[in-house]
Amino acid sequence: MPNGYNGKILHVDLTTSTITVEEPPDVFYRTYLGGKGIGTYYLLKEVPPGADPLGPENVLAVSLSVLTGAPISGQSRVVINAKSPVTKGMGDSEAGGFWPAQAKAAGFDAFIIRGKAEKPVYLWVHDGKAELRDASHLWGKVTGEVEKTIRQELDDTKVEVLQIGPAGEKQVSYACVINMANRANGRTGMGAVMGSKNLKAIAVRGKGSPDIADREALKKLARWGKDHLKESVVYGYHLDGTAGDVPYMQADGGLPTHNFDSGVFDGYEAISGQVMTQTILKERDTCFACIVRCKRVVEITEGPYQVDPLYGGPEYETVATLGSCCNVDDLAAISKGNELCNMYGLDTISTGVMIAWAMDCFEHGLITTEDTGGLELTWGNAEAMVKLTELIGKREGFGEFLADGMTKAAKKLGPEAEALAVACKGNPLPAHMPRVKRLLGLHYAVNAAGADHMTVEHDPSYTELSDRISELGLLNPQPIGVMNAEKVRFTAYTQWLYHSLDCAGVCMFVWGPSYQLYGPGQLVEMIRAVTGWDFSLWELIKVGERSANMMQAFNAREGFTSADDRLPDKLLQPLKGGPTDGLRYTIEEFESSRSTYYALCGWDTEGHPTRAKLEELGLSWLVE
Amino acid sequence: MPNGYNGKILHVDLTTSTITVEEPPDVFYRTYLGGKGIGTYYLLKEVPPGADPLGPENVLAVSLSVLTGAPISGQSRVVINAKSPVTKGMGDSEAGGFWPAQAKAAGFDAFIIRGKAEKPVYLWVHDGKAELRDASHLWGKVTGEVEKTIRQELDDTKVEVLQIGPAGEKQVSYACVINMANRANGRTGMGAVMGSKNLKAIAVRGKGSPDIADREALKKLARWGKDHLKESVVYGYHLDGTAGDVPYMQADGGLPTHNFDSGVFDGYEAISGQVMTQTILKERDTCFACIVRCKRVVEITEGPYQVDPLYGGPEYETVATLGSCCNVDDLAAISKGNELCNMYGLDTISTGVMIAWAMDCFEHGLITTEDTGGLELTWGNAEAMVKLTELIGKREGFGEFLADGMTKAAKKLGPEAEALAVACKGNPLPAHMPRVKRLLGLHYAVNAAGADHMTVEHDPSYTELSDRISELGLLNPQPIGVMNAEKVRFTAYTQWLYHSLDCAGVCMFVWGPSYQLYGPGQLVEMIRAVTGWDFSLWELIKVGERSANMMQAFNAREGFTSADDRLPDKLLQPLKGGPTDGLRYTIEEFESSRSTYYALCGWDTEGHPTRAKLEELGLSWLVE
Repeated sequence: MPNGYNGKILHVDLTTSTITVEEPPDVFYRTYLGGKGIGTYYLLKEVPPGADPLGPENVLAVSLSVLTGAPISGQSRVVINAKSPVTKGMGDSEAGGFWPAQAKAAGFDAFIIRGKAEKPVYLWVHDGKAELRDASHLWGKVTGEVEKTIRQELDDTKVEVLQIGPAGEKQVSYACVINMANRANGRTGMGAVMGSKNLKAIAVRGKGSPDIADREALKKLARWGKDHLKESVVYGYHLDGTAGDVPYMQADGGLPTHNFDSGVFDGYEAISGQVMTQTILKERDTCFACIVRCKRVVEITEGPYQVDPLYGGPEYETVATLGSCCNVDDLAAISKGNELCNMYGLDTISTGVMIAWAMDCFEHGLITTEDTGGLELTWGNAEAMVKLTELIGKREGFGEFLADGMTKAAKKLGPEAEALAVACKGNPLPAHMPRVKRLLGLHYAVNAAGADHMTVEHDPSYTELSDRISELGLLNPQPIGVMNAEKVRFTAYTQWLYHSLDCAGVCMFVWGPSYQLYGPGQLVEMIRAVTGWDFSLWELIKVGERSANMMQAFNAREGFTSADDRLPDKLLQPLKGGPTDGLRYTIEEFESSRSTYYALCGWDTEGHPTRAKLEELGLSWLVE
Repeated sequence: MPNGYNGKILHVDLTTSTITVEEPPDVFYRTYLGGKGIGTYYLLKEVPPGADPLGPENVLAVSLSVLTGAPISGQSRVVINAKSPVTKGMGDSEAGGFWPAQAKAAGFDAFIIRGKAEKPVYLWVHDGKAELRDASHLWGKVTGEVEKTIRQELDDTKVEVLQIGPAGEKQVSYACVINMANRANGRTGMGAVMGSKNLKAIAVRGKGSPDIADREALKKLARWGKDHLKESVVYGYHLDGTAGDVPYMQADGGLPTHNFDSGVFDGYEAISGQVMTQTILKERDTCFACIVRCKRVVEITEGPYQVDPLYGGPEYETVATLGSCCNVDDLAAISKGNELCNMYGLDTISTGVMIAWAMDCFEHGLITTEDTGGLELTWGNAEAMVKLTELIGKREGFGEFLADGMTKAAKKLGPEAEALAVACKGNPLPAHMPRVKRLLGLHYAVNAAGADHMTVEHDPSYTELSDRISELGLLNPQPIGVMNAEKVRFTAYTQWLYHSLDCAGVCMFVWGPSYQLYGPGQLVEMIRAVTGWDFSLWELIKVGERSANMMQAFNAREGFTSADDRLPDKLLQPLKGGPTDGLRYTIEEFESSRSTYYALCGWDTEGHPTRAKLEELGLSWLVE
């Protein structure tokens, strides 16, 4: 086979301040591609079972892919993996922006970070060189300020900064990692891990351009995307952002409301992307080389919630968690909450669902104003939502109580509060309704990183499946609101595909089948064009399945069993109101689908990958 | 998805002389493609468990595919399935020629034949119409004669005839089905099943031409093949036929000799395709629209073994089974044996290995001239080999003893003779040496139709794997003569691919990865071009895996267990002589690889597909 890809991986030991460069062979890249494939690989190799997620033994893997930086839409993504302080298993989170392409231009495919620095530092990577610099003066500062300061001291406005905010420094368990002050590797607390290592930021700058095996083919593919953007589903995100989905979720009865008690929210229109476009939208932002421009930049200069455009604007996940899930219908307040999350480095989803849970507990009398320091955590209280977001980010007052995450907080309050906690493996649910998009219940429960909206196609509940889905051999559309064997198959196939997107380091909006810009077959074309490999969709999906199995094997080693793969109690309760009134998941359908899923994956009844499955995937090195 | 394929399936009930036409939906074709996918589908639906393979309850499925008749190399293939009188499980055999394309032009994708005619009949299919005609006058005649007669009585020299010879009429268990008087659906006794139904032939003629969704793309692919033929491995078959492999097999120590006791044969050169080219080759024949022209036509007009070119010429499998396996080094005698097999409708592989086994038994004193009617079954006795072939075809004399196949004959002679029988599930091994190409031991043992050289890539023992193999994500070449987990994975992946070739109804020489004309990715392109589907390699391999699981499920229903998936004793004995002297399979490596294989396939420890695996493959209808 052609020796298609030459890349470099930067290894940093913060304890000893040692920096080394590894140059893996081509076959390594072809086996793992990048992203969570590479991240999980190093985690499995280097993190001892039982390691403290916030201790120096944990490894933080910040990974790009073989495709990052190629001149085409949807490739500038960074994946961060580490043992998660939220789930205690494999952590995983993705983000876009300009940082990924800039990091690649600086010469590296991944940054594998071990140990703990004695004092706050940041990593400065430029044109194949890397150094650790003091970050004491940046500690405690919010992201926008830090980015400005680093660019000033490095005297280069094009430096891109991936960093934690004060929440990460203080190890809020669901602290995120931010780049461009508004792109977040949001889930599973990767910011807390970075904070525990005293690593404030990774600043990158480079002039390298990626090797492209077949520039003509790539150009053709890029041109195709330009020609077809306006007819694609994702063009809706260009127009109104991901929050443009709000009215559709409402119409389907799947907009998480009142801490997931209902799928409809009276105030849905006010928080929609459509209203955002008409009111506070300042501009549409983009990631490197992407024509979609789905990112929002909002600005509010008047009223109680003024918002700096530096911090971007809220996504669908944010308006639905800080918004409808808390019954908050004030878009300005949501935008302020979003700004605070980006400033302090908090995952908006976890923050929103934590607050919704706190409101639920407040209603049930499990939390009182005595606990909250006077905050009235009533449904729809926008002011309280904003205030609490800030308190969590600063780890102050009642924010301290919520800062260690759902599992710990709920346990303190007892079983009634635990029954109100909508999370899988401690990871709060994103803004999709498993009682409606039924396969998400299974997926959230079995997914190694807990409830995650980025790692599966949501539901095959189309009247006609898209051509892109049919490329996977999924030819039979299924009704909404039910679970069956065909949906288990759909879950597994699309989960593997989404894993492969996160190994290839590409954006699900541009390359995920339901958004219908590019399809899976075209992603294969892109990989062939960039690397020169005789790559196929078979191989791509096997890369994804390999990644899923590696993550699962990591969790198995940490002692996870089928008991950890379960549904939050709320999903077994009937939804209230709207077209999905009364819809609920049953424990029988869940358990039956889970056992089918395990068997289909080649996992045993505890959800552990079998030796044969690992060997099939070329992971014999993982077999103990 | 586009409604890509409209086809027709002809159903014939011979008991009632009823003929009906079915028009399955597009999704049926996309799920099964054709060939053994369609054949096995109907067998599973219609043959009751425990049915007598030679009784009217058995169904004979003669299947083409969505691709048959498209103007490109390697697509004119016919697959025949029925419950096998050889294995008592799913029978399966493939052949090329002009019959498949002509049958498609006559309007059908498959012929599903049930029941038993009262008197000999043949089926005449022309331009969408079908009728049963009396065949009493053809009964007892050899294939060349029958073909001539049918063409005469239908007054059309372009009629193509698929038929049984006298061996099939007499239900010799390994009787084959012949078209063009020299192309054989050879293995697993499909001719005996056809004979048991009193169906002498299926004659076809039509003027239809296949729908091609994208003629330009197909033309481009055809042109590509033309441009790359001379640099491909398969071009060697153009030059010297498949028997051109003899010297390579000899050099690798893998040429089956002396009933598989040795991998080297002193007389190898005399039986090679290279010598054939220089001596008796009259011309190179082809299948419809194929540029490879791998088929041999030999003519011998003098000496004891005169051969009519009508019956073609011997393949590698034939020279190695009638030849080296019997220590026969007389190419004229082998060509005569080949002619007799094609005249009488006998599988050359089974016939050759049966005779080699008889010679082995003769040497061990288990068979004497008293049994053979005076035939001296000594090693290398060419005359005896030819005579015995004829006797089997006529089911006369000692031929009668061998006519019911290996299992029955060996059982009659007792354990010592059984230990000399080189067969899996009663199906004699083709001419490849599992002690050398190690994965074949596993494959032959677990394969639903027994030992079959058409359903797996032989061994990943290249110094560098071909680009076409790497498309499957198989990136690590393995040493020859050993078995390991990587080879189990290689076995499964390539088995699924080869199943998909037999569902797509394409030739392994043109589309199989190791022959390096077209690769798997190009087969996907071809399917897309012909059907207009958004097809992918993922989907293609899943079609193959589906087919493998359907065949396995059929066997499971017939009561097969892991006890049926075993190695012939001889493979555990060391090879004698040559570079592979001393090489043997061990029972430990076999059993370990089999259990890995089962688990990897999603089968239980008895080799039965699990419910979850069937559901994954969209085969919920098969779950009882």
